[in-house]
Amino acid sequence: MRGGRDGGCESDGVRVLGVDPGLTRCGLGVVDGRPGRRAALVQVDVVRTPAGDGLERRLLAVSEVIENWLHRHRPDVLAVERVFSQNNVSTVMGTAQVSGVALLAAARAGIPVALHTPSEVKAAVTGDGRAGKEQVATMVTRILGLKVAPRPADASDALALAVCHLWRGAAPDAVAGRSGAPTAAQSAWAAALAATRSR
Amino acid sequence: MRGGRDGGCESDGVRVLGVDPGLTRCGLGVVDGRPGRRAALVQVDVVRTPAGDGLERRLLAVSEVIENWLHRHRPDVLAVERVFSQNNVSTVMGTAQVSGVALLAAARAGIPVALHTPSEVKAAVTGDGRAGKEQVATMVTRILGLKVAPRPADASDALALAVCHLWRGAAPDAVAGRSGAPTAAQSAWAAALAATRSR
Repeated sequence: MRGGRDGGCESDGVRVLGVDPGLTRCGLGVVDGRPGRRAALVQVDVVRTPAGDGLERRLLAVSEVIENWLHRHRPDVLAVERVFSQNNVSTVMGTAQVSGVALLAAARAGIPVALHTPSEVKAAVTGDGRAGKEQVATMVTRILGLKVAPRPADASDALALAVCHLWRGAAPDAVAGRSGAPTAAQSAWAAALAATRSR
Repeated sequence: MRGGRDGGCESDGVRVLGVDPGLTRCGLGVVDGRPGRRAALVQVDVVRTPAGDGLERRLLAVSEVIENWLHRHRPDVLAVERVFSQNNVSTVMGTAQVSGVALLAAARAGIPVALHTPSEVKAAVTGDGRAGKEQVATMVTRILGLKVAPRPADASDALALAVCHLWRGAAPDAVAGRSGAPTAAQSAWAAALAATRSR
């Protein structure tokens, strides 16, 4: 728990910055989780960099925004999507480079990181590891009590990463990306999620 | 041409920092090119990060060494290997992340970057875009007038990137990684290379 941040969440809560890495669009979403309360949206946005700019300028632009968010929101954890080379070949290298830049920014700020696979994120928020982007957006909207779904998909994906981490994050396994038996906190969160879904 | 660096090369020369990105081993090599002279080795080394460390710590460690080299050697250009997702799947994500971190460091330092494909590098130093690592190491040793080949291969690959850039770098096309008609400087360099090879 870090102090001195804007609109700080209560001292027993956890604040997560989710990063959906991408060079054209990089989703950033900050979510506060507090025991017994609905997870709360703090801020969500998408960083866009022009395709015509040099690769190094684009990476610098994304890096500067992430550093600004780390400073302003002081998250307890930065959760980033684990990128696989099986993803879209034409964009995966830029995606991996942005994820590297995000991880570097967290390391520089002394903020722990966690990697979650796309299927872990989908399973956490929808119950189905193969859910589509619309379903993820719908559930993120419901879980965070928003009036409209965050757009574009990169924005809701970043929030889904943060929510996923709140649910999985209590277990050390989550940092290594392995699955394990849920802790009491995770079970409680899962029950709360299930209740949200059934409404 | 940047001033104030250690063992600075003459004002009409070009200094290139070649980066062969990798998480386990990242090759770094600085080469000075001066008209009418043999390309000269300035420094070569390999940054290693322990596989047991967190990904973000490893990226930070590589980043800090690259920043240190940029500050110490003040290269005119940072030349980095263009990573493709067709490369070794198990390591390509880490390789892409390190390349992102290297490009970011250059952007921060205001140093231009250039990307060269592995086949461009091999063709530049051996004449064969499909040359093996041993052949590349042999030619780098000969071109730079070294007594022994730099080891491991990541070290000679970093120097090969720098040499490749000296040859291709005069053309703006090289920055975009496209091939184009050689400039007078490139032709002169190619002739010098050919002379080196025939010895």
